[in-house]
Amino acid sequence: MNFNLDEAIEVLERMPQALESLLTGLSDGWLLHNEGDGTWHTTEVIEHLTLAEKTNWLPRLEIILQKGESKPFPPFDRYAHLQEASVRSLEQKLLEFKTIRAENIARLRTLVEPEKHLELTGLHPAFGVVKVRELLSTWVVHDLTHTAQIVRVMAKRYTTDVGPWSEYLGILNK
Amino acid sequence: MNFNLDEAIEVLERMPQALESLLTGLSDGWLLHNEGDGTWHTTEVIEHLTLAEKTNWLPRLEIILQKGESKPFPPFDRYAHLQEASVRSLEQKLLEFKTIRAENIARLRTLVEPEKHLELTGLHPAFGVVKVRELLSTWVVHDLTHTAQIVRVMAKRYTTDVGPWSEYLGILNK
Repeated sequence: MNFNLDEAIEVLERMPQALESLLTGLSDGWLLHNEGDGTWHTTEVIEHLTLAEKTNWLPRLEIILQKGESKPFPPFDRYAHLQEASVRSLEQKLLEFKTIRAENIARLRTLVEPEKHLELTGLHPAFGVVKVRELLSTWVVHDLTHTAQIVRVMAKRYTTDVGPWSEYLGILNK
Repeated sequence: MNFNLDEAIEVLERMPQALESLLTGLSDGWLLHNEGDGTWHTTEVIEHLTLAEKTNWLPRLEIILQKGESKPFPPFDRYAHLQEASVRSLEQKLLEFKTIRAENIARLRTLVEPEKHLELTGLHPAFGVVKVRELLSTWVVHDLTHTAQIVRVMAKRYTTDVGPWSEYLGILNK
């Protein structure tokens, strides 16, 4: 096992700024590109990350700490953000993500003492018994997997443009 | 075809800051993790990106503009950065990448007029005839593929820690 709370927080606290540095000011050609019907463009990924901050990580952590395995987590609707028609700009969405992430990290620090809480268990609606350590590790990997998605979607805009170099660029075949 | 010089530059000019925001101050546990023997950790990826700035993109562009197909590009040794024993910190390496990237973008703007130059051709040692547009598209996708690599390598540190959630996290199986 590699999980360490301080190291996990290092990634969680950097991610909003990293995404802001990458995405702010990009043309719509980059921000609204997707991988085909039913796939997400970059702005939708940011909305999904923000929704998970609101309804997934901290609420689930609090259920484990307060109720243990006696109350299953409510299911997380991974597509709920697609229902909310939103006219806000990407910059406003990034700011919302950054703000709620900072609040959640502050709350995480007050709630979790690693020596006491990481092995506590709760009840996931699909997986059954899960641990605080697993939930918090997943929070970090979830950030990283959606960052990989954002750069993959952007890369694919140039699938044809790169010509023969596509042979060296595995990201274009994923 | 989607390539557009201004949009390509949008990505090229944001990437050093995005990587700096993600990586500066991370623990060595994150920065020195790799995917096993013969794979790169994050610091090696930054060294590789910097080497490509020095020896690949602009030098090749200049060969095309000056010599066309009459002189093949020198081969790019994708592993050459691994030979240079370096004691500099990640922060110093990120600064070097950022500095040379900014210089290269400035030079790119002076060298390339899209209406005149994008379809000009040069001779790649493995692929044969390639176009300026293909070279510049590849520069962008190369940034994105190595960013995907960095976040994938980081994510894999927690492959076991996430427990049953690995089922939802495709990045861990790549």
